[in-house]
Amino acid sequence: MAEDPLSHPALDKAAGEEFLREAFQIILEEAVRKGTDVTEKVCDWRKPQDLQEILDLELRGSGEPQQRVLEHCRDVIHYSVKTCHPRFFNQLFSGLDPHALVGRMITETLNTSQYTYEIAPVFVLMEEVVLKKLRELIGWGSGDGIFCPGGSLSNIYAMNVARYQRFPDSKQTGIWALPRLAVFTSQECHYSVQKGAAFLGIGTDNIYLVGVDERGKMIPADLEKQINKAKSEGACPFFVNATCGTTVLGAFDPLADVADVCERHGAWFHVDAAWGGSALLSRRHRHLLRGIERADSVAWNPHKMLMTGLQCSAFLLRDSSGLLQRCHGANATYLFQTDKFYDVAYDTGDKTIQCGRKVDCLKLWLMWKANGTEGLEKRVDRAFEFTRYLAEEIKKREGFQLVIEPEFINLCFWFVPHSLRGKEGCADYWERLGKVSAGNAGSGVGGEPPFSDG
Amino acid sequence: MAEDPLSHPALDKAAGEEFLREAFQIILEEAVRKGTDVTEKVCDWRKPQDLQEILDLELRGSGEPQQRVLEHCRDVIHYSVKTCHPRFFNQLFSGLDPHALVGRMITETLNTSQYTYEIAPVFVLMEEVVLKKLRELIGWGSGDGIFCPGGSLSNIYAMNVARYQRFPDSKQTGIWALPRLAVFTSQECHYSVQKGAAFLGIGTDNIYLVGVDERGKMIPADLEKQINKAKSEGACPFFVNATCGTTVLGAFDPLADVADVCERHGAWFHVDAAWGGSALLSRRHRHLLRGIERADSVAWNPHKMLMTGLQCSAFLLRDSSGLLQRCHGANATYLFQTDKFYDVAYDTGDKTIQCGRKVDCLKLWLMWKANGTEGLEKRVDRAFEFTRYLAEEIKKREGFQLVIEPEFINLCFWFVPHSLRGKEGCADYWERLGKVSAGNAGSGVGGEPPFSDG
Repeated sequence: MAEDPLSHPALDKAAGEEFLREAFQIILEEAVRKGTDVTEKVCDWRKPQDLQEILDLELRGSGEPQQRVLEHCRDVIHYSVKTCHPRFFNQLFSGLDPHALVGRMITETLNTSQYTYEIAPVFVLMEEVVLKKLRELIGWGSGDGIFCPGGSLSNIYAMNVARYQRFPDSKQTGIWALPRLAVFTSQECHYSVQKGAAFLGIGTDNIYLVGVDERGKMIPADLEKQINKAKSEGACPFFVNATCGTTVLGAFDPLADVADVCERHGAWFHVDAAWGGSALLSRRHRHLLRGIERADSVAWNPHKMLMTGLQCSAFLLRDSSGLLQRCHGANATYLFQTDKFYDVAYDTGDKTIQCGRKVDCLKLWLMWKANGTEGLEKRVDRAFEFTRYLAEEIKKREGFQLVIEPEFINLCFWFVPHSLRGKEGCADYWERLGKVSAGNAGSGVGGEPPFSDG
Repeated sequence: MAEDPLSHPALDKAAGEEFLREAFQIILEEAVRKGTDVTEKVCDWRKPQDLQEILDLELRGSGEPQQRVLEHCRDVIHYSVKTCHPRFFNQLFSGLDPHALVGRMITETLNTSQYTYEIAPVFVLMEEVVLKKLRELIGWGSGDGIFCPGGSLSNIYAMNVARYQRFPDSKQTGIWALPRLAVFTSQECHYSVQKGAAFLGIGTDNIYLVGVDERGKMIPADLEKQINKAKSEGACPFFVNATCGTTVLGAFDPLADVADVCERHGAWFHVDAAWGGSALLSRRHRHLLRGIERADSVAWNPHKMLMTGLQCSAFLLRDSSGLLQRCHGANATYLFQTDKFYDVAYDTGDKTIQCGRKVDCLKLWLMWKANGTEGLEKRVDRAFEFTRYLAEEIKKREGFQLVIEPEFINLCFWFVPHSLRGKEGCADYWERLGKVSAGNAGSGVGGEPPFSDG
């Protein structure tokens, strides 16, 4: 068979390993070392047209030599924003945890799709251990859950599971015969509630926005008012979303009071703790989520404050009757055969609306192993301390103005330029001030950068 | 400030780098080298209870020493299934492309969330280049698209965009006032069509299953019949899903004929080419997808046959009017500000129902750069040749029986044990034969293993 091209491998193993080694060195030097070095730039900014010229993005008929491909690796890293940099203050995370990164690299190399125990034995068991740990921190002795590609999908899953629990037949019949379904959430909530209502066929008009207090927290009395309003309009109030850590102010809705209202009206109580959930790890700060154990479901993204890296988003349920599986399951026989030689309860892949699904548990598990619950707690506490420190600095510094005293790690402030100082009374003051930060995220402090130089 | 704990980094940079280096060595030896070595096991199989005992999965209060964490890395790799192994014949992929793997490792290290140009400059431009290339292979000179977390979500996106295009108000109002929406797909289609109909509130009862011929291809005349049936029942036939590469037989629906039917009835024409799309790269085999250029949308997963690694799933649209953005957009002002200092058309993150979104384009781009379109074409052609080779071997070999001549790279066969040979006439023959492969996937040939030893 020596002449048969099929009898030879298509790739040269040694060359492949050599490429991996060289590329790893580039990753280590350019992305890890420089990317976390406070004396380097967070971003070498270029306009789209200029960047298009610099990067040779075009895909051609012929392959390029290894050295050129390695140059591409360097360029991609160089012109990307260094989200691990101590001075990266854009959305939601910062810093680099080497254990989580190794978890991600192993995940990528093994390239497992987490359908079944037969294909993902280690990760099926590991996901369950990690989800159980997260549920324990919520205060649940049992329950269910799955890792999702992002907190938005976790929130949308919650809405769908709530609908299914109330109207199980709608999975087959659609929602035409159902009463108009009403969703309740505060005006400060994440926009995924809106996206979810649209996507699930419920419609954004059927979201009742609940008022918030001066700290951005949902007002339970207004929730009750809105629910009664919806009922009087013939709608079915099936789903309440409370937020732990709102996007802008970092507000925590009063969960226990919201739970009371949900109980009175038989509504599903979901907590979007995508951002704020990690405060549960802190004995000092977990009081912010008091009442979360009364939720029916929780969305919690360790890829935010805990620094596992994208994507690591847990959708957690209090239910342990198999509701999630019944809601999302399609029982595809080519994948989820029932005549296997092991307990097919370990085949968890049908709990999602995905088919192929990335392994999202290993990075969190490995990081947890290395740091322990106590190490993660310190990380969370440190982020709070940094925020407190920055708030005090802002108060001392001329031209800076705190919007509100932080209770979480969001810190909202104004920078008032010289030309506007002392002109708070002017008619166009707020309009002009608003333009100062145009184009900047500028209003949040992300997770802490442990590789920081100080 | 020397005494202030906040003035010190939480992690030791040098120790972090050392850990990365040691872990990379383990990944290279255990996952890459052994994982692709034909003389090593694909899987060191253990029952769930036994594996639970072997792996020390529990998460504790205290962190574990680095050497112990590295042992965990070894164990995780050792007991995981080696999807890169030449003898891995479970679902949908196999082999290891070192360029794609490097793309994944850079992605993980940079940890970019692909919302906006400001946070993901390189990847916003790169995603567009890659999607454009995929669209060109479909035969579209313009269009739109986005990478999704898997082909199921791409298919579900298609269904939602089709609904929105027909009934744009339903995004706000929900679907109560709409006529009953009817979905058409063959009985051989992927189960995500079912999951999507349930999730979007349409309901699985409103899926009309279209008959297939002896090769598993949709019968266009039956599609027309089903559409007319739905119309006569007062339903609105808004969405037709055709499949390129069905899950079991690898069948390609006759796209041009299906397109004719869709045009006559004004239905959205979606092609689920998650599995079969990569045949477009082969000049010899792309005829299988003749007519795909007439689709309104296409799902195509390079993570399957092209070996980019999970997840790499493109959702592609012929529309270039911004339909996708209008359908999924929520215009969250904290993220998608309109007063930025660059053209915000580059801020593509609002085209999805996700918020944070992993970078999925780099692995494909880097692999394409290294191999060229011609290299990828060879990879696809080789997979076809392997399948052809295996089909001929099966015909020669006693006790093996081909279910159907393959036209794609799925190969379905029976293994007939001695006890059943020559007993095709017995009443319980098929029942007994079916039990032979119980618990085995056994009926598909995945992508080709380029690191194979022969």
